[in-house]
Amino acid sequence: MTHIFEQDLPQTQANFVALSPLSFIERSALVYPDRLAVVHGALRQTWSQTYARCRQLASALQQRGIGLGDTVAVILPNTPPMVEAHFGVPMAGAVLNTLNTRLDAAALAYMLDHGEAKAVIVDPEFAAVMAHALSLREVQRDILVIDAEDALYPGTAQRIGSVTYEALLASGSADFAWEMPSAEWAAISLNYTSGTTGRPKGVVYHHRGATLNALSNILEWDMPKHAIYLWTLPMFHCNGWCFPWTIAARAGVNVCLRRVDPKAIFDAFREHGVTHYCGAPIVHAALVAAPDDIKQGIQHQVKAMVAGAAPPAAIIEGMEKLGIDLTHTYGLTEIYGPAAICVKHEAWDALDVGERARLNARQGVNYHLQSSVTVMDSATMQRVPADGQTMGEIMFRGSIMMKGYLKNPKATQEAFEGGWFHTGDLAVIDPDGYIKIKDRSKDIIISGGENISSIEVEDALYRHPAVMAAAVVAKPDLKWGETPCAFIELKAGAQVTAEDIIAHCKQHLAGFKVPRAVVFMDLPKTSTGKIQKFELRTIAGSI
Amino acid sequence: MTHIFEQDLPQTQANFVALSPLSFIERSALVYPDRLAVVHGALRQTWSQTYARCRQLASALQQRGIGLGDTVAVILPNTPPMVEAHFGVPMAGAVLNTLNTRLDAAALAYMLDHGEAKAVIVDPEFAAVMAHALSLREVQRDILVIDAEDALYPGTAQRIGSVTYEALLASGSADFAWEMPSAEWAAISLNYTSGTTGRPKGVVYHHRGATLNALSNILEWDMPKHAIYLWTLPMFHCNGWCFPWTIAARAGVNVCLRRVDPKAIFDAFREHGVTHYCGAPIVHAALVAAPDDIKQGIQHQVKAMVAGAAPPAAIIEGMEKLGIDLTHTYGLTEIYGPAAICVKHEAWDALDVGERARLNARQGVNYHLQSSVTVMDSATMQRVPADGQTMGEIMFRGSIMMKGYLKNPKATQEAFEGGWFHTGDLAVIDPDGYIKIKDRSKDIIISGGENISSIEVEDALYRHPAVMAAAVVAKPDLKWGETPCAFIELKAGAQVTAEDIIAHCKQHLAGFKVPRAVVFMDLPKTSTGKIQKFELRTIAGSI
Repeated sequence: MTHIFEQDLPQTQANFVALSPLSFIERSALVYPDRLAVVHGALRQTWSQTYARCRQLASALQQRGIGLGDTVAVILPNTPPMVEAHFGVPMAGAVLNTLNTRLDAAALAYMLDHGEAKAVIVDPEFAAVMAHALSLREVQRDILVIDAEDALYPGTAQRIGSVTYEALLASGSADFAWEMPSAEWAAISLNYTSGTTGRPKGVVYHHRGATLNALSNILEWDMPKHAIYLWTLPMFHCNGWCFPWTIAARAGVNVCLRRVDPKAIFDAFREHGVTHYCGAPIVHAALVAAPDDIKQGIQHQVKAMVAGAAPPAAIIEGMEKLGIDLTHTYGLTEIYGPAAICVKHEAWDALDVGERARLNARQGVNYHLQSSVTVMDSATMQRVPADGQTMGEIMFRGSIMMKGYLKNPKATQEAFEGGWFHTGDLAVIDPDGYIKIKDRSKDIIISGGENISSIEVEDALYRHPAVMAAAVVAKPDLKWGETPCAFIELKAGAQVTAEDIIAHCKQHLAGFKVPRAVVFMDLPKTSTGKIQKFELRTIAGSI
Repeated sequence: MTHIFEQDLPQTQANFVALSPLSFIERSALVYPDRLAVVHGALRQTWSQTYARCRQLASALQQRGIGLGDTVAVILPNTPPMVEAHFGVPMAGAVLNTLNTRLDAAALAYMLDHGEAKAVIVDPEFAAVMAHALSLREVQRDILVIDAEDALYPGTAQRIGSVTYEALLASGSADFAWEMPSAEWAAISLNYTSGTTGRPKGVVYHHRGATLNALSNILEWDMPKHAIYLWTLPMFHCNGWCFPWTIAARAGVNVCLRRVDPKAIFDAFREHGVTHYCGAPIVHAALVAAPDDIKQGIQHQVKAMVAGAAPPAAIIEGMEKLGIDLTHTYGLTEIYGPAAICVKHEAWDALDVGERARLNARQGVNYHLQSSVTVMDSATMQRVPADGQTMGEIMFRGSIMMKGYLKNPKATQEAFEGGWFHTGDLAVIDPDGYIKIKDRSKDIIISGGENISSIEVEDALYRHPAVMAAAVVAKPDLKWGETPCAFIELKAGAQVTAEDIIAHCKQHLAGFKVPRAVVFMDLPKTSTGKIQKFELRTIAGSI
């Protein structure tokens, strides 16, 4: 029997509207039309101008038959078209697929095929690799190739498309009557994982999760209206941790940046009064390591967010000296970037930097609007005791969670087994309820914020005719966090040098995936023949 | 045909969790267990203590058979049990019905009957009226009557219930495994409208709307973590505009207050460092009018929110002198209190106070997470032009919107006619997109075919220095159809004639808008302080 509060009280158009981050730009354009939205070199663009351009983009895409459920890929650095794509593409009903600019043509071609892209917006810096990728596609679908010009691109622009981005926008209508998604479960973007094993998986984001993560970013940082955000984190990573939508919700300023460079960052702090930025540890480390003369003259408070690896004590101390307030978060592509956070406490301020670093190195607690993060025994699905000792797997549950993996129901079901998302990361729960990773899922190497699948590198190594067995593990690196270290067992009688192996890898892998160190040895194996990577990590840590 | 982003990507327990403000207290108790949550007299209660008490309340209610879909009424001032009821009652699956403490026994009895309350928590101040109300009920249902004791109640406590609030809590479990609502559409609270005509209607709130309005409060105010909030606004009004949930989301401090009194408010500013408070215009006016000696020594920024009526210039100026930043919002019970806001702009700071008051008196734009507020011709459901001239009806659409009226499908359907909530308020849209109320549709006066806004005439009356309160209604007129009739409550000791008032109005209004009749009297008001114009209409019709 239903009770009185369920009778005659249905959802209607009046009292139920789908959550969408597209509502944020609509409101900022209404309430703060003349506020600055985008800065890029000499470009200054207000929220009303930016909103108009996003509507033009949506209109122009729909005119060309690109709409509901179609994929629009982009290969762009952190430039204005990248900001606009986060609104214009879903305003057309389409799904934004931001491609990692560091990938090689084969990987890009795979994503264009798998994601069934109907259009791609291309920055001149990546025109050559994209042209190659387009030719490598297995399915030669019709695809609208759009050249995004950029006055700040230092090279000679090569046009590979049928229309420029500006010409495309000019063909669209600035008062286009776009529609909000009919359901908040509708897809807004597609983000490929780097793939710890095998092929990258296409992670599908929904409007609901994008909205809630964008709001959580504000809550975590107490981010005020009109915050000035510097784009040091690539927007192709988990949609820049949803910050394009966060900044729209705050009517803030997107300070664009083609390339992460300490001098450019400090210049932006001074020139634009940047208040917030995000990045992998390498970004913050680069600021700490920068020469003193380029650091001078920052008077205001800057807040920074780090994810990808825990910040070491040297970084925490260096950031404090710079007057930058650093917050450590933890996340994965499947949970829209950060969805757990190491919330700091005033009491920690009194501790020495080593102890602060230990506390801040933890993965922490659930993000504000993420329902739960916990550590469970993956066999019993029981939460481990909060004793700082008992290991289990980090699991998430909540609305800041992918719809699933595109065209891969098996992987989706496995990931969501038992009603929780399984991260593959092993951790403990400390007595204060904070979780702490003990052992990263073993294969992954995180270099300069990029995930590198050890198996992918091993696959390349195995293609070398002299290689009998190969294993790749992370080697700690001051600059990159980690770099791939290759351990190779050669075939009997084979003669090969480390340089030969590296040269071979360069033919098969993107540059950042190529091992920086190569060790030739007999590989330690278990009785069942599995290579014992934990032993190799010990070696890699000592060379 | 469904597209690829709708295939094999279902909602699961892992990636879809209902929004609920109950998640806020759970997280604050986890992350900030030792932070202060509630202050009341000498009482200091942390978030972990408060969460434990809410779980005890939920547990104790369920032990007594009160759970899913049951109504728990409360008649409480802004005391700790009122804060706790906002969590403990819905944690039991029940629906919180906060009763207006100013109502008489007959009105309370109607609400207990109509809402089918299974329990009621009673402050000693209202024990007598509640005992009377219980006896007046038409249906003598079993009801658990709980006496909430309060050391700060100055009178002699009369017990009318079978258990005290503290004894009830003691019987519950502090680690009760309460459950989040299975759907965000589930009811969380029931709020009766004051009903200027006819019977009060029972407005049903859902978890989704409560969550989104609680978050919007934070966004609007840039409210930081650990904000210190003073309870000047009754929590029985629209659940205190959702601020009990907002403060939990911020792990802030609820500074309780049994009675609104300027000295107590300034004392709380100083003693507890209050950063935020809300209230009807009369609350702010009382602070402005307070003697100078009780205002001294407020060093920090205080933010205030006003709704219910536009703040006049004298209040805006007075608040500025006190260093209090006042924000004007607009709402109704059906939209969880404020759901539109007159967002201020820096450019307004340079204007004179009269012009600032004119701009700030507007109802403004949609609240952050409310989808839309607009003004439409209610016949055609077309938006009126943004010309500051064309009148229409204010309409809302969004998720910060009631489920509907309890057991009243006809009123619900009428309110949501055409997919928008009809407020009954008549307004224009200014060229900057801000809406401005001209009148309640039933309060408009039509004289010789011309519409006269009663609010405009009242504004003119308020400018007369002798006027304390004023209301204008239509007086039937053989020649003109209707003419404006003014009812005026004079300030103590003021001496003024009807002719003086009419002469004053002629300086500020077009001739046809000047009242033809002026009546001096104490104005009849509802329990929430609204002037009862229907009574004035009766008088106007008889003179």
